[in-house]
Amino acid sequence: MPKDYAAEILAGSTTAVARLITWLEDEDERAYQCMVQLYRHTGKAYIIGITGSPGAGKSTLTDKLTRHIRKAGLTVGIIAVDPSSPFTGGAILGDRVRMSEHNLDEDVYIRSMATRGFLGGMSKATGDVVKVLDAFGKDVIIIETVGVGQDEVDIIGIADTTCLVLVPGLGDAIQSMKAGIMEIADVFAINKADRAGADQLLAEVTYRVEQDAHIKPTDWTPTVVKTVAVNDEGVDQLWEAVKEHRAHLEENGKLQEKRRERTYRETLRMIHSELFRIVREQLENSGQLDHIVEEILDRKLDPYSIMRQIVSKWLSISPK
Amino acid sequence: MPKDYAAEILAGSTTAVARLITWLEDEDERAYQCMVQLYRHTGKAYIIGITGSPGAGKSTLTDKLTRHIRKAGLTVGIIAVDPSSPFTGGAILGDRVRMSEHNLDEDVYIRSMATRGFLGGMSKATGDVVKVLDAFGKDVIIIETVGVGQDEVDIIGIADTTCLVLVPGLGDAIQSMKAGIMEIADVFAINKADRAGADQLLAEVTYRVEQDAHIKPTDWTPTVVKTVAVNDEGVDQLWEAVKEHRAHLEENGKLQEKRRERTYRETLRMIHSELFRIVREQLENSGQLDHIVEEILDRKLDPYSIMRQIVSKWLSISPK
Repeated sequence: MPKDYAAEILAGSTTAVARLITWLEDEDERAYQCMVQLYRHTGKAYIIGITGSPGAGKSTLTDKLTRHIRKAGLTVGIIAVDPSSPFTGGAILGDRVRMSEHNLDEDVYIRSMATRGFLGGMSKATGDVVKVLDAFGKDVIIIETVGVGQDEVDIIGIADTTCLVLVPGLGDAIQSMKAGIMEIADVFAINKADRAGADQLLAEVTYRVEQDAHIKPTDWTPTVVKTVAVNDEGVDQLWEAVKEHRAHLEENGKLQEKRRERTYRETLRMIHSELFRIVREQLENSGQLDHIVEEILDRKLDPYSIMRQIVSKWLSISPK
Repeated sequence: MPKDYAAEILAGSTTAVARLITWLEDEDERAYQCMVQLYRHTGKAYIIGITGSPGAGKSTLTDKLTRHIRKAGLTVGIIAVDPSSPFTGGAILGDRVRMSEHNLDEDVYIRSMATRGFLGGMSKATGDVVKVLDAFGKDVIIIETVGVGQDEVDIIGIADTTCLVLVPGLGDAIQSMKAGIMEIADVFAINKADRAGADQLLAEVTYRVEQDAHIKPTDWTPTVVKTVAVNDEGVDQLWEAVKEHRAHLEENGKLQEKRRERTYRETLRMIHSELFRIVREQLENSGQLDHIVEEILDRKLDPYSIMRQIVSKWLSISPK
């Protein structure tokens, strides 16, 4: 009789959690039944997203924040998503677990995620892992990721509270790259705030936040806190800011609304990847795609017509 | 009678090109028929990818490189892809056209791309625009993009020759982010080479390139050139390096091989987006998704089972 991994996860087995996550990363069919079983045990965890440029100190900040969350008696799951994974298989964050000060605390589960697979694979897998850790009983789940690129933006969309980590002196170009992502931050951490330029950056961000609030009034104005994560300075305030944002969301029914939108996007994403997975499998295994590609290369066919033909042949629903 | 934009593009109308690209960005249905018509006129352009961190000087380098390509009597298309676009609509690169020294040269077509839409939208749209400029008759097409994130990596996968721009002093973290992307570079430009640390970076990259060639022998060892793009120094060597790489690819039948792989990925990606377009249309317009989401939120249903149910209902071919 095969092991019931979902039951083992619900009973607290970290081995089973690790195994399931590997299956999810590998798109192993065995993950499916586990996820079906685990889903109704989800929805309790609070999800924090931590994003920022490479070198902003996200890992250290996550580690110190975890210390404060643990002090509050809560358990923590950390998912470090490595954007370089399409090539390196996650080498950069490979040591993430070992690097953490919490690696011996059994109430903290840390996992680096490397993604193989096609587009959107990273955000889909992250969403799945969040559910695993949620069902596993972690009170707070932190997703740590570099905030550039569309897939990373989708990853951050999974969080209830998003924290953008900025540091003084990383250069204008890099900061401006964040211009887009500033719009989704609920809390800003000006990290390495003992460096020159911290107050200026604080002033800039605060000004920007207030201006945005003026232009597009919302009922939450992002909090800006200064931190020196490596010395655990200001991290308590960051935790307070996260709690305030959470309270705000919960008071106004906004948390439910946010989760509805997330579930909406997530369900679309799942259906889409499943369809694509099957279509791809068929096209590749039958050798059909190889044949089509030759015709396209010879300009006997064009990929645009082919795309529509295949899709309409495969789907029994008739698109307009 | 509607205008035949494809014919106008083939006849040299930049207005028609601009219109079609906007349709592509907007996923306007009218783009489809144009692309079908244009496809058989593609395959002649040589495609160069220029990638690197924000602040590496990619735009200046592209501009100077264009000057050398123009001197060789070739026409140029430049596509500047803005990774921040999911939010800002491409504000950062919005002035790319105005900033170029070639903005009055009618043999240089420059376009910034902002993407709206779902995952993979950016790489799909870039692939489409490359085809438009190819059919439009540009001899060389340069794609300029920041090299972080899976979608950006896919964008660079469109190029025949990929040039990674590195600069001294941008910090270890950022350089190491490039570790993955180093593997796809055919040519390295150490830009801003008049800065302190340029020789050290040159030595590091050269060492790395030689080591890689040792570990995983290939028949092309990436060229490393020093440039000071702003003064047009070393850009001639960069252009020589690109031409050498091109000659290498063409001699060995590798270009055809590379384009076959690209067409393979591209065709898959097109089917991927087409599926998504239809999935979304069907689920959203019927209000079906809203209903499902409520049930999922209430934990009456799980998204995993739903996904399989919908997919098996929709697919006219039974998987496996």
